[in-house]
Amino acid sequence: MIYVDNNATTAVAPEVRDVMLPFFNELYYNPSSMYPPAQNVAHEVKKARQTIAQCLDIEDPSEILFTSCASESNNAAIFGSAAANSSRKHIITTSVEHPAVLEVCKEMERRGYRVTYLKVNKLGELDMREYVRALDEDTLIVSIMHANNETGVVFPVEDLARIAKETDPKIIFHTDATQTMTKLPLNYQSGLFDLVSFSGHKFHAPKGVGGLYIRKGTRIRPFLIGGHQENGRRAGTENVAYIVGMAEAMKLAAKTHAADSERIRKMRARFENTLLERIPYIEINGRGAARMPNTSNIAVHCIEGEAILYQLSEAGICASSGSACTSGSLESSHVLKAMNVPFTAMHGSTRFSFSRYNTEEEIAYITDVFPKIVERLRNMSPYWDKQNQRPIVRN
Amino acid sequence: MIYVDNNATTAVAPEVRDVMLPFFNELYYNPSSMYPPAQNVAHEVKKARQTIAQCLDIEDPSEILFTSCASESNNAAIFGSAAANSSRKHIITTSVEHPAVLEVCKEMERRGYRVTYLKVNKLGELDMREYVRALDEDTLIVSIMHANNETGVVFPVEDLARIAKETDPKIIFHTDATQTMTKLPLNYQSGLFDLVSFSGHKFHAPKGVGGLYIRKGTRIRPFLIGGHQENGRRAGTENVAYIVGMAEAMKLAAKTHAADSERIRKMRARFENTLLERIPYIEINGRGAARMPNTSNIAVHCIEGEAILYQLSEAGICASSGSACTSGSLESSHVLKAMNVPFTAMHGSTRFSFSRYNTEEEIAYITDVFPKIVERLRNMSPYWDKQNQRPIVRN
Repeated sequence: MIYVDNNATTAVAPEVRDVMLPFFNELYYNPSSMYPPAQNVAHEVKKARQTIAQCLDIEDPSEILFTSCASESNNAAIFGSAAANSSRKHIITTSVEHPAVLEVCKEMERRGYRVTYLKVNKLGELDMREYVRALDEDTLIVSIMHANNETGVVFPVEDLARIAKETDPKIIFHTDATQTMTKLPLNYQSGLFDLVSFSGHKFHAPKGVGGLYIRKGTRIRPFLIGGHQENGRRAGTENVAYIVGMAEAMKLAAKTHAADSERIRKMRARFENTLLERIPYIEINGRGAARMPNTSNIAVHCIEGEAILYQLSEAGICASSGSACTSGSLESSHVLKAMNVPFTAMHGSTRFSFSRYNTEEEIAYITDVFPKIVERLRNMSPYWDKQNQRPIVRN
Repeated sequence: MIYVDNNATTAVAPEVRDVMLPFFNELYYNPSSMYPPAQNVAHEVKKARQTIAQCLDIEDPSEILFTSCASESNNAAIFGSAAANSSRKHIITTSVEHPAVLEVCKEMERRGYRVTYLKVNKLGELDMREYVRALDEDTLIVSIMHANNETGVVFPVEDLARIAKETDPKIIFHTDATQTMTKLPLNYQSGLFDLVSFSGHKFHAPKGVGGLYIRKGTRIRPFLIGGHQENGRRAGTENVAYIVGMAEAMKLAAKTHAADSERIRKMRARFENTLLERIPYIEINGRGAARMPNTSNIAVHCIEGEAILYQLSEAGICASSGSACTSGSLESSHVLKAMNVPFTAMHGSTRFSFSRYNTEEEIAYITDVFPKIVERLRNMSPYWDKQNQRPIVRN
């Protein structure tokens, strides 16, 4: 199998698996217990927190909160901010966030909050003027993702945060960095980011562990309550094995990030250029905007994404239509809808997302197979003019 | 090391570790993805749910919700019930619950709810008349633990649930079964239990996975929102490895439960009887009440628990003073306080909690070492009459 769905989840790195194993055997103690072997386990959790802080250039490791996933981090960020700052009732987010932010915002609307959902243009970019207009004295929190999971389009979160802070330093700035963590840097020491969500399984740690960066001084109340763990900010016995694993994954990424990133960016460029040459009537969603180096979302006119994915999978290629988090439903992507991708292309959009484990050979194979699949499917499509090999133009 | 702190956490069973490993290697796919290898992973999650349902004699596996820990399950149970039933504003719980229930209840008080904290007697038992009096037409939820983590005292949750349902079928009955899951049965098909919390790491699965039984038809809203996972009831990519591991742990326990339970009960009886013979002025907290077979909470008059634990640990024995979840603080146990354990004994209370991995040899070693430790510490205690080997009686 060729796995190019790394925005959905990633393979656990062998090094990560290895550092976790002892915690399933002899090091199973509860880090809250007082005897020395348990205190050793607590020390490993502490070291993991320090490692992550170091990798991210965060001065104070206690600014890292461990959670069970980025969805929990996003819930904690928004609900926790609202609970600690009850006088403000306005939230700013975008129309292309992950459901774990969008659904929380919808819940906040039900609780009487006003939510501004910023629009995006055809490239998936925000309109800064709309953003500036939205900020007001009632704004509690701005929650804007660092990069989009479906298209890889990167938002200028540093600018966005600076504008928010300049408008009113009390506005809390949250970014969901699930897709960018270990891939694109954030300047934590700038003081611009109050809350940053991330998830281990997007960078070769296992599914079931995540984190929330909480800048010192940020007014927030715990989401999951009832224990002294995580400095009283998140109840529940620590998932020691995964926490240690996530720190190792981050260390690994930090070591090879620059080289990986450059290689993946080039690989993606070749991938997209080859496909653009070989397949007529396709578009790269978000191309032209700032994008993650690893994500390629391709709009294929006149065929169905589900059919493409099925054929790709038959050919041993794991890709996706949009996001795993909304898959299973036949609803088309809220992200592509927001970008006004034409109806005929939206349904044929396919996401390829690469990791450091992908090779040139794999890319060559996909760029060989994919055009054939598209050709075959188009020749069966009622929207395709087989004779002239172009879309049927309807009035 | 001799590990007799199994109410704090347990060693991961080797069989559990083994079934998890493939999910860190080749089976890392996101169960929400559509290609066959990911669907195989989704199938494993489904099988795990079925296994757990089968082990617990639950008809419909969809009644099992996977969470990240029992604390999350408890938060989800109470907050989720409140969100779905806004007309009722009264909660009944006990004064000896785990902090993950008590703190949530305190938060509900801040939100304007009325909370009844039922008292316990010297044995740690509830007063049924007080309970019956507390139930009223405003009661939203009763949240009462199955067995206490510190003393092992078992509450008659089936009776409690029946009384609640007979009073008003709309009252939601929740029990935190973290300590009893796989150890004491609950009759799920009775329809008495609406919500049951549990945690994998108390029965030889890893830390970081738990569950919430939600009886079909129970009015509850999701706690962690923003994803279609868990049938829309809990967002976040599934912790596949741990879910599969927890199912395996449950299967293992189901196989050996009867034999384990009997053996542990006898072992504990020998343990307590030997200590009662060998050490004067000790009491077994909760003895005389219905108790878990594995827990022994021993009040040692005239010395400090911390000193006992230190000496035990020096002798290679891992035990605890009360609960890991409240440890680190020198506050005395809220459970023993509620039981009116005398001040001089409360501070010397030590919890031993056994698992199927404990042996007779270990028990023999502890019953040999513990009396010597107590003697040594008492001879240094200002509360102990060294001459007459009895407590100094003060007026």
